[in-house]
Amino acid sequence: MNAPLRRLPDAAPSLWKLDDIVRDLRLAREQWRAAQHRPLESGCREFPSREALREIVDKLCGALFPMRLGPPDLQQGPGEDFYVGHTLDSALRSLLDQVRLELTHVSRHDPEVDAATIETDAVAIVRQFAAALPGIRIVLDSDVEAAYRGDPAARSVDEIVLCYPGTLAIIHHRLAHRLYRLGVPLLARIVAELAHSATGIDIHPGARIGKSFFIDHGTGVVIGETAVIGDRVRLYQAVTLGAKRFNVDADGSLEKGAPRHPIVEDDVVIYAGATILGRVTIGHGSSIGGNVWLTHSIPPGSFLTQAVSRNEVLEGGGGI
Amino acid sequence: MNAPLRRLPDAAPSLWKLDDIVRDLRLAREQWRAAQHRPLESGCREFPSREALREIVDKLCGALFPMRLGPPDLQQGPGEDFYVGHTLDSALRSLLDQVRLELTHVSRHDPEVDAATIETDAVAIVRQFAAALPGIRIVLDSDVEAAYRGDPAARSVDEIVLCYPGTLAIIHHRLAHRLYRLGVPLLARIVAELAHSATGIDIHPGARIGKSFFIDHGTGVVIGETAVIGDRVRLYQAVTLGAKRFNVDADGSLEKGAPRHPIVEDDVVIYAGATILGRVTIGHGSSIGGNVWLTHSIPPGSFLTQAVSRNEVLEGGGGI
Amino acid sequence: MNAPLRRLPDAAPSLWKLDDIVRDLRLAREQWRAAQHRPLESGCREFPSREALREIVDKLCGALFPMRLGPPDLQQGPGEDFYVGHTLDSALRSLLDQVRLELTHVSRHDPEVDAATIETDAVAIVRQFAAALPGIRIVLDSDVEAAYRGDPAARSVDEIVLCYPGTLAIIHHRLAHRLYRLGVPLLARIVAELAHSATGIDIHPGARIGKSFFIDHGTGVVIGETAVIGDRVRLYQAVTLGAKRFNVDADGSLEKGAPRHPIVEDDVVIYAGATILGRVTIGHGSSIGGNVWLTHSIPPGSFLTQAVSRNEVLEGGGGI
Amino acid sequence: MNAPLRRLPDAAPSLWKLDDIVRDLRLAREQWRAAQHRPLESGCREFPSREALREIVDKLCGALFPMRLGPPDLQQGPGEDFYVGHTLDSALRSLLDQVRLELTHVSRHDPEVDAATIETDAVAIVRQFAAALPGIRIVLDSDVEAAYRGDPAARSVDEIVLCYPGTLAIIHHRLAHRLYRLGVPLLARIVAELAHSATGIDIHPGARIGKSFFIDHGTGVVIGETAVIGDRVRLYQAVTLGAKRFNVDADGSLEKGAPRHPIVEDDVVIYAGATILGRVTIGHGSSIGGNVWLTHSIPPGSFLTQAVSRNEVLEGGGGI
Amino acid sequence: MNAPLRRLPDAAPSLWKLDDIVRDLRLAREQWRAAQHRPLESGCREFPSREALREIVDKLCGALFPMRLGPPDLQQGPGEDFYVGHTLDSALRSLLDQVRLELTHVSRHDPEVDAATIETDAVAIVRQFAAALPGIRIVLDSDVEAAYRGDPAARSVDEIVLCYPGTLAIIHHRLAHRLYRLGVPLLARIVAELAHSATGIDIHPGARIGKSFFIDHGTGVVIGETAVIGDRVRLYQAVTLGAKRFNVDADGSLEKGAPRHPIVEDDVVIYAGATILGRVTIGHGSSIGGNVWLTHSIPPGSFLTQAVSRNEVLEGGGGI
Amino acid sequence: MNAPLRRLPDAAPSLWKLDDIVRDLRLAREQWRAAQHRPLESGCREFPSREALREIVDKLCGALFPMRLGPPDLQQGPGEDFYVGHTLDSALRSLLDQVRLELTHVSRHDPEVDAATIETDAVAIVRQFAAALPGIRIVLDSDVEAAYRGDPAARSVDEIVLCYPGTLAIIHHRLAHRLYRLGVPLLARIVAELAHSATGIDIHPGARIGKSFFIDHGTGVVIGETAVIGDRVRLYQAVTLGAKRFNVDADGSLEKGAPRHPIVEDDVVIYAGATILGRVTIGHGSSIGGNVWLTHSIPPGSFLTQAVSRNEVLEGGGGI
Repeated sequence: MNAPLRRLPDAAPSLWKLDDIVRDLRLAREQWRAAQHRPLESGCREFPSREALREIVDKLCGALFPMRLGPPDLQQGPGEDFYVGHTLDSALRSLLDQVRLELTHVSRHDPEVDAATIETDAVAIVRQFAAALPGIRIVLDSDVEAAYRGDPAARSVDEIVLCYPGTLAIIHHRLAHRLYRLGVPLLARIVAELAHSATGIDIHPGARIGKSFFIDHGTGVVIGETAVIGDRVRLYQAVTLGAKRFNVDADGSLEKGAPRHPIVEDDVVIYAGATILGRVTIGHGSSIGGNVWLTHSIPPGSFLTQAVSRNEVLEGGGGI
Repeated sequence: MNAPLRRLPDAAPSLWKLDDIVRDLRLAREQWRAAQHRPLESGCREFPSREALREIVDKLCGALFPMRLGPPDLQQGPGEDFYVGHTLDSALRSLLDQVRLELTHVSRHDPEVDAATIETDAVAIVRQFAAALPGIRIVLDSDVEAAYRGDPAARSVDEIVLCYPGTLAIIHHRLAHRLYRLGVPLLARIVAELAHSATGIDIHPGARIGKSFFIDHGTGVVIGETAVIGDRVRLYQAVTLGAKRFNVDADGSLEKGAPRHPIVEDDVVIYAGATILGRVTIGHGSSIGGNVWLTHSIPPGSFLTQAVSRNEVLEGGGGI
Repeated sequence: MNAPLRRLPDAAPSLWKLDDIVRDLRLAREQWRAAQHRPLESGCREFPSREALREIVDKLCGALFPMRLGPPDLQQGPGEDFYVGHTLDSALRSLLDQVRLELTHVSRHDPEVDAATIETDAVAIVRQFAAALPGIRIVLDSDVEAAYRGDPAARSVDEIVLCYPGTLAIIHHRLAHRLYRLGVPLLARIVAELAHSATGIDIHPGARIGKSFFIDHGTGVVIGETAVIGDRVRLYQAVTLGAKRFNVDADGSLEKGAPRHPIVEDDVVIYAGATILGRVTIGHGSSIGGNVWLTHSIPPGSFLTQAVSRNEVLEGGGGI
Repeated sequence: MNAPLRRLPDAAPSLWKLDDIVRDLRLAREQWRAAQHRPLESGCREFPSREALREIVDKLCGALFPMRLGPPDLQQGPGEDFYVGHTLDSALRSLLDQVRLELTHVSRHDPEVDAATIETDAVAIVRQFAAALPGIRIVLDSDVEAAYRGDPAARSVDEIVLCYPGTLAIIHHRLAHRLYRLGVPLLARIVAELAHSATGIDIHPGARIGKSFFIDHGTGVVIGETAVIGDRVRLYQAVTLGAKRFNVDADGSLEKGAPRHPIVEDDVVIYAGATILGRVTIGHGSSIGGNVWLTHSIPPGSFLTQAVSRNEVLEGGGGI
Repeated sequence: MNAPLRRLPDAAPSLWKLDDIVRDLRLAREQWRAAQHRPLESGCREFPSREALREIVDKLCGALFPMRLGPPDLQQGPGEDFYVGHTLDSALRSLLDQVRLELTHVSRHDPEVDAATIETDAVAIVRQFAAALPGIRIVLDSDVEAAYRGDPAARSVDEIVLCYPGTLAIIHHRLAHRLYRLGVPLLARIVAELAHSATGIDIHPGARIGKSFFIDHGTGVVIGETAVIGDRVRLYQAVTLGAKRFNVDADGSLEKGAPRHPIVEDDVVIYAGATILGRVTIGHGSSIGGNVWLTHSIPPGSFLTQAVSRNEVLEGGGGI
Repeated sequence: MNAPLRRLPDAAPSLWKLDDIVRDLRLAREQWRAAQHRPLESGCREFPSREALREIVDKLCGALFPMRLGPPDLQQGPGEDFYVGHTLDSALRSLLDQVRLELTHVSRHDPEVDAATIETDAVAIVRQFAAALPGIRIVLDSDVEAAYRGDPAARSVDEIVLCYPGTLAIIHHRLAHRLYRLGVPLLARIVAELAHSATGIDIHPGARIGKSFFIDHGTGVVIGETAVIGDRVRLYQAVTLGAKRFNVDADGSLEKGAPRHPIVEDDVVIYAGATILGRVTIGHGSSIGGNVWLTHSIPPGSFLTQAVSRNEVLEGGGGI
């Protein structure tokens, strides 16, 4: 219930010196563009849209799991296929727009790439992405089953699809990874960050992850770009599969893309808070205890736990 | 500013071979349903809706704290009760729909449960839930006061209700826990995950938590299904109250529901990153230091901190 | 597809005993207000709105980075300035409303503060905030460049603005910190919590942070109210810059506002999971290894890493 | 830019005497319900929803004319059928809900109608409605062609589907008429009023209208419940096909449903503002001039125009 | 599916010469303001909002007829009063904002009206408006009953409230007329135009209308500002109760507000298209036939119909 | 409050025989396309969007009248120009998309029109449209003044801009007419129908209308494509400026585009319900009375009124 001021002071229109701020912000942009060697004439610079990708992924989730992530009133039968077909068609068409944007942005300084090439490439990317979806659904089913087997609190596979943040993260990852491999890493990264924001699970779309993968709780998990994870691996919250150090080129800039994250073989369990750094290998069937800090490879069948001596118990008194 | 293609290639309609993908996705679903023993004829399979529960919880938050989480133009006086009454009525009615969905889903293979039974049970659950709300408000007030006393950065109790993620998490938990105990654990879990996604605080709805509870910062906190927490307990970010191991039945499947998480008695403080695993008891008045790793019980009044020797300081040189 | 009940039981209108619950909730509110010494007659108690601040920050993001966070169809040229000017004007006007609400709330018991004073103060605050925006953009550009230099997975500065949660967090922080210093700490806190919820990065708006700041991954980072961070500092996920203990006044209540968080000098790197507590100083150019626990100052150029002896490797057998 | 009042007068909460008004409104409702013999215990009284029907009709329009009234990015080919199938399925499911509501409302005092009967009837109604849609599309195509042939300003058949209010009105009517004949006249009426509000064309859903029907401009057209219109009829704005008088029963109440509106045979044109009242017949091939007032039948091939003598021209002076 | 242009021509940013158009539009505004004697410094000029009034009226409709125009899931019983109370409170609070805007605008050149006066007046207006609502409901009930009695196509009183445009128009009018009489004619006019746009029925809010009023079909009805209508009057579509001529002041400008529209006494029926102009009186119990043109008073009990001779029937041939 | 059916009949998935209906609708479409000679391979057939044009016109209204039809919190001063510039830029960009769609559709069978030609033409059209806006604002100001002078019920020029349907109609018309003349008649028609639906005023975008034009009440007004209206003309509701008959080509199809509607010279007033048909001229300064029917030219200064003899007054008895 607001009572408007009846008469603003005479200087009202320049309350914020709007013209000055707009000018200074323009100067700041020009300074940045000059520093980045981005001339004004580069014209159209539309970027892929986080919001558009959010809608695309929502639709793909519905198309992959129509009876659980699709519309609430859907029923099994012919209606299911109509829903899947229409939703896919709409999602793929919108994805094609986003793919075009990334390809256009990437090649904006390349005189040899014309619009026709981009169009051909974009259609090819989306077509391959579309063809991969049934396979993705099958692998996701293995992930859901792994979660059901791995969590004593889970009551049904449906609960896992509906509620588990780990499920949300792995659906996003399997879609993002496909985009990453098809040559649209920026789209892939945006999809990954949608899951990161919703779940606290940060999986770089470059990471390669086998089937029957399960992350429980998940907040704080970080999996790096070149990590390789086998089948039937289970992670808990705050596990890091990171890089130990970054290599620097002869000219002092970071070497990008080199393998620098762990290889985790089949049937490994990594408990909460464990940190594994560098291009090390965790042999199959190993188990890494909570909060373990690991920077070297371990052989198959290893069981690693942190020393028990690290806590001092001060019973009955004393400050922290 | 998009220039539409004027003429798509002749094959345009089959850009994605839509028919094939829809068919393959249907085959993947059928394969899954066969593996899960879910015949087609099971008919109506509507699940509780995350979106519906989000709206229900938002309304309940408004009804519980009308002047702070209700509509911005509300004023104290008769309008307050009208708002509370209408908002509650609407939220409870919508909750009744969701309760029906869970009960229907759970009993879908039980020939002895008919629609009338479900209706009676659903109404009873919502009625008991409704009756519990004033008590929940009183306990939440104790939580807010505990936060104000426990955080030197807090300026007012209002700031705590409006801004603190720990407040959001505990409101959701106290509602979810009630749903869990009334026999709708899937609804409870969805409510808990709403808070988890918004705050990074993951409290299983089964956990029992006393009054005057405060979580500061909160990201990465995990509290397991069978944890029991006393009055006036304070936690910081990344604290885990987890299970040490899972018991396996005679037939090799996980034993579900057994007590497997810590008991934290009254007046305990647990600092950031501490991990407490298994059905251990933290005696009343104890204090657990940051990053401590604990898998056994400790008596009342304990002060536990991790050994100081673990860091090597390498001053003035050397790689990491 | 729901079939409505045709006839509810006679007692339908009192399914929830709505009158009783509304009365009990009112009693709970009155009990709380009495305990908080908040008489009914205090009248208008509107609080700042999280939703309004979310829109304001979204607009400011667009005005600061129009071609990347503004509307997708914007183009360089005169349209850019019109967009920036209009968006700023709208955001600042809305911010003025929120500033008024906080000032009014804070001074509601102060008979010497009248509406004219609040108006004058509110306009002054927003004017100074507006004038600071071009400088904030320049510092944010340094942050973006730091991220590009610091992350081998980053492909372009644009990707960093569009995708990186660390970017989102630092934009929010630099805006929130300005609000904090201008005397509207509740607004500042709400802005900080918007970023916390979206990214898992919890930076108190009081923290002072130099230029070229970069947080990678970020989930679980906590930076306290009185922390001071120099230029070119880099943090990874789950780093805590916290307080060691809280001082208590002579009357037993917490001493609020005293310096209690670390000082991090220029060119420091702090790896994932490190915890630094208390008013200690990390000398310039130091590097703090992952999971390090630190409660004392270290000189410039230190390289700190945790002891390697803490993990027990149990190869080839045994339980955890 | 509103400056909130800092302190409302003490009586603020009772600004409107809210309790009194609510009580008086309740008394007014009770008085009405008593007068209508509607006891409180009648329980559930949900009505069909105008908003739900608006969405249903929008979806049906899309399913009938997918490339013109469907989503803008749709393309011919398999995607078209998927869109049509999914949209129909969703619309029909929602329509089933609305049909149930009308049937439930109508039979609320009939002890012999139970929920199972209503369900069976509702499904039968929607099934027949669905089966009629392809035929409706074919008749609507004849209407569109008639408009193209009949309006010299029309440039293409597409313009007629996209822009002409007469098209909107006849699509709504053909759907509403089918609902009317299937026994859900209240739904039919709501659909008719949606078109009336959007176009100013008021066709009672009971009216029977042949193929190739065209209304140009349309504002003010009224066609009554028992009107019968042949093929290839064309109307202009403000034409009324109304009742001359209403018959009264022996007990003084209106006789409802008796034929009381005109019969218009094939190939008739009725120009703007003509009024035709009563159960008269306009013989095939007739033409009725603008503003004509007609209350008796005319034979086939008649050309009716109003007398030219009715205007007095007062050239060069005088008041009106 | 749009393919973006990859490179716009160099002149892209000035596609529209945006700066010039903005400047010319500013010049046009300045020219207009100069002509209207509206100096720049007049400051805050916020107008009442059509959108806000639409929401207010929607809420008032719900509060007046909760079970028919309120939320679909409402039930009789205590929930009804809570809904009514909350909805009213919210609507009245929003109306108070709009009343303030009109009073502020009207008195913007009056140095004797200050903000406190406006506040007092605004609260008084809304309070009186609120107190009138129960009476308005009772009169509206009489209107609904009149419609049911007057239309042979009406099946139930509920259909009339839900579907009839005449009902929508009279609800709006009775609210608008109250606002008009309370001294906020601009708000009243906006409310009237909301109904006009939705129904084609144009009733000036100044018109005084008795109880049991019914307009059937309604499109094109116009009722002027100073019209006076008795009880139990029934109108059909396209009836005009207008002014015959406008009086001009000594200085040549229109004389505003003088009685210039018809007085229609009790129990009159006016059929479609009739036009009655000037301050004439239609005696009680009269009946005015369709398309009648009337500019003089007629005594009670008159039956007026237009001459039958006006149509020339040209059977069997001839052009129009 | 809906109780879902627990088990649908076995045939549930084929409740509507969805496959059959989809197939029959496809056959109906194919039949139509064959009849219209529209082969499947014509590919992309996106049409201009009514919804997009509604948003464009809303933005243009705001840019033309920023303080009255722009955002409610706008203030005079620099913010006004920023708003106008940004809103225009956004509206024009969106209009460019729509212009492309119409040009593409129109030339879809013309092998000589390629995408570059369309792009050039579209930009030229939008540029000319943009340049015309300041002039349109000036003419609209004359219309607003004419309304103020012409309506004794008008209290201020602001009320006229905010409330009068005639204002809404003429704003739409002046924009639509410009689009019509620039060669995008389908866009023009959609804009005209937006106004028609909202106001009941149907002005074909081809009509040429001079300055200071005022339509009062307006419902039912129809102005044809080739009508020519001078300056300072005033119309009332239900006035028709229509065609008398349509000419037919040698081959029997309608002759499109020929002048067939009236010419109304300067300073003419036409009262409610008057109908003027054919290419006749109403001489300047004439006045046409209500309900007059006119199909021939009249000289300047004519005063035309309908004969008073047409009503039969039957006082004191008799049926209608």
